[in-house]
Amino acid sequence: MSETSVVFIGRKPVMNYVLACMTALQSGGKKVTVKARGRAISTAVDTVQILQHRFYKNLKIGEIKTNTEQLTGENNITLNVSTIEITISA
Amino acid sequence: MSETSVVFIGRKPVMNYVLACMTALQSGGKKVTVKARGRAISTAVDTVQILQHRFYKNLKIGEIKTNTEQLTGENNITLNVSTIEITISA
Repeated sequence: MSETSVVFIGRKPVMNYVLACMTALQSGGKKVTVKARGRAISTAVDTVQILQHRFYKNLKIGEIKTNTEQLTGENNITLNVSTIEITISA
Repeated sequence: MSETSVVFIGRKPVMNYVLACMTALQSGGKKVTVKARGRAISTAVDTVQILQHRFYKNLKIGEIKTNTEQLTGENNITLNVSTIEITISA
């Protein structure tokens, strides 16, 4: 069984997440799932692209899944937010 | 041979692109490729999610590809921009 680490993408500079993925890729579990919601989705794609082009020429981009999550915001308003999950392995 | 239409995602409101995809899905070619660059990537995912959840319950999300494009901007500065391509069929 191979463990899969998860890196959640947020609003920090993209290199923070590149570094987080590199750490995760190197620490045993060779599979990493990069997850993001909403506006951070493009940062997730950036993260994987930077990893592949600059640091891991042989990085394998596995399955890319998209989905919708329902968030309950203030005043009980339900928001639909798109999500992405990109599985990578070194 | 099935024709594939391409819908490019930009900065307009997401429903513009949902409508463009619906038109493309209904006009013969049943496969549509949704393409986006940079910040528009999250709008591309939104477009496909809205199509699937509101308009086409049986929408098939096919291959999702990510890539990097090099753009030459002002002063000959080269910019790397992430891209996404999502193939859908009704």
